[in-house]
Amino acid sequence: MAAARDQAGGREGLAREMVGVIMAGGTGSRFWPASTQDRPKQFLSLFGDHSLLQQSYERLAASLPPERILVLTSVEHAGLVRLQLPQLPPENVVAEPQRRDTAAAVTLAACLAAARFGDPIMAIVTADHVIAPVEAFTQTLLSAAAGAADGRSLYTFGIRPDHAATGFGYLELGEPLPSSDAIAHWVLGRFVEKPDLETARAYVAGGRHLWNSGMFVWRSHAILEQLRRHVPEHESRIRQAVALDGKPGFAAELASAFEPLRKVSIDYAVMERAHNVRCVVATFGWHDVGSFTALADHLPTDADGNAHRGRVFGVDAHDNIVFAEDEGEVVALVGLHDLVVVRAGKRTLVLPRERAQDIKELVARLDEDVK
Amino acid sequence: MAAARDQAGGREGLAREMVGVIMAGGTGSRFWPASTQDRPKQFLSLFGDHSLLQQSYERLAASLPPERILVLTSVEHAGLVRLQLPQLPPENVVAEPQRRDTAAAVTLAACLAAARFGDPIMAIVTADHVIAPVEAFTQTLLSAAAGAADGRSLYTFGIRPDHAATGFGYLELGEPLPSSDAIAHWVLGRFVEKPDLETARAYVAGGRHLWNSGMFVWRSHAILEQLRRHVPEHESRIRQAVALDGKPGFAAELASAFEPLRKVSIDYAVMERAHNVRCVVATFGWHDVGSFTALADHLPTDADGNAHRGRVFGVDAHDNIVFAEDEGEVVALVGLHDLVVVRAGKRTLVLPRERAQDIKELVARLDEDVK
Repeated sequence: MAAARDQAGGREGLAREMVGVIMAGGTGSRFWPASTQDRPKQFLSLFGDHSLLQQSYERLAASLPPERILVLTSVEHAGLVRLQLPQLPPENVVAEPQRRDTAAAVTLAACLAAARFGDPIMAIVTADHVIAPVEAFTQTLLSAAAGAADGRSLYTFGIRPDHAATGFGYLELGEPLPSSDAIAHWVLGRFVEKPDLETARAYVAGGRHLWNSGMFVWRSHAILEQLRRHVPEHESRIRQAVALDGKPGFAAELASAFEPLRKVSIDYAVMERAHNVRCVVATFGWHDVGSFTALADHLPTDADGNAHRGRVFGVDAHDNIVFAEDEGEVVALVGLHDLVVVRAGKRTLVLPRERAQDIKELVARLDEDVK
Repeated sequence: MAAARDQAGGREGLAREMVGVIMAGGTGSRFWPASTQDRPKQFLSLFGDHSLLQQSYERLAASLPPERILVLTSVEHAGLVRLQLPQLPPENVVAEPQRRDTAAAVTLAACLAAARFGDPIMAIVTADHVIAPVEAFTQTLLSAAAGAADGRSLYTFGIRPDHAATGFGYLELGEPLPSSDAIAHWVLGRFVEKPDLETARAYVAGGRHLWNSGMFVWRSHAILEQLRRHVPEHESRIRQAVALDGKPGFAAELASAFEPLRKVSIDYAVMERAHNVRCVVATFGWHDVGSFTALADHLPTDADGNAHRGRVFGVDAHDNIVFAEDEGEVVALVGLHDLVVVRAGKRTLVLPRERAQDIKELVARLDEDVK
């Protein structure tokens, strides 16, 4: 942390104006049974000892104090957030009363940030991606903050693609902007939806498209202005509820405010419509790790190409993925290849690698008590 | 038990002359990870709540009192036998100090039975087969005991084959004998080793071959006479050690007696050589249940033919075998068929049904601590 601060150098003043917001409301089922309804992906320790949420917090805490970090999550998971981040002031764990997608979550974060901190520079970050190293994250974050400090632009974080992914939206770059540091700044041309493979290949070859990471930096008044324009019901209902922040009845008022809101993402509601969007090109490594097959790239492998967390014993078994929540578990495989085997608690999943995307369908069919 | 005794009717006097001996020294690895070195198959509750050993005990206890039932096991598992059969007098759990195959175990049982009970009719039964109903077992047992009561014959239990199994030895029947009850008695023609498939088919079609169940009934002096003739070192060493039965130093003396004995089965050492062997045709159902595929025939199946102990959820998954030690476990399968998935403690096994016989090879390769 000290090292990161030193690296940030003269930008400490900027960091003091910032508020970090971790979006931890995801409910992804693609990691069942490692993830469950009760404990979605961001709460899992997929690598090492710390959960993705904890790692996300630690990345922000390298430049921000705990009292300036908010975590937004669903009301069901607020307790788990407090458990995993005991260093956070309790009021900084903010429960979304209903799932109303990211436009509502961002509105809530912006209203709270404005109410509690004046007009801070907000950094909206995800809780379910793998990002390293911290120093590069801090560098990109502060560079975007410097760009957003005048309150005139909304900044997105673009990731330079290393393959023709069809599972992400892309940011099409417009014109380059001058930058006061090593981070490239661009005017955003446009957001593009998840492309087909051919288009994705053209994007990678062309060099003018970045992955949309879902992370943003802006002054709170700048995003609130856009929210007021594009999703006025979100802005007005939530702003009125947030007037009760810290007072009795806040939770009930917020629940009433959320209830009628339509589910819409911040990308669709605002970012694709606003004309003042810019982009910084991230210098950190970024992985969505959206499935067990993606996770396998980050696990150790044995001599037969079996990626594993936990112990794996194979006889004539190759290129399998074994993931055990408890690393002391043993999984033995005979005569099998390209399978995914997942162990967690009293749940076990086995399926072919190429059907990893079908976990969602499976989970939808499961009995409620094992989801 | 009362019902079985009533059924046995006038044979209660016969039962009072008997001693039951359960051979529970097996180390089979074909049920790993449900079975382990520490807990071989006979200690598992493969069906219902009672282990195969407990079920074996209950079958004998239907006609014999606990003090006339001995359990022979390896020294490593004597504690587990006592735990599973607390109703047994402690001295009736007999530990074989080393693994020296069944000729040594039978010699030890016969010497102890003679020393403790005079010249009882011994019933040697297995602990790792599934047998039902108890009444038919008792009927067959007492019929063999009646035949063996004069001390002139060694009785084996033959099982009428229901398919051309190549994994068992067979009993070739000689001449029929008069019987005083509903059980058929035969002079044994000869023992035959595990046949090839063609031979097995001929055996089943011919009707004169039965499966060798590994269960025997004889007077203790009758088997001791044969042991003295065919494996004299076994008989003399073990008899001398058993003179210390119940006295200090017995265990050490027995260990010295066992140490140099060659490993040989009772079938090979005695039964195939003796000229006074007879056979009763069992009226009970008998299953070796030697593998998970055999076990599947005894488990409930879902609509897609997935046999299971524990809960199974399939998406496009059929004809799999799922066996969870803890029936509260959930195993989910997507797009897979004809697999075996076994869960026990911190161990999981996945392999194709047709490779179930390779579990032994797998276990041989496992690290010692997970065997």
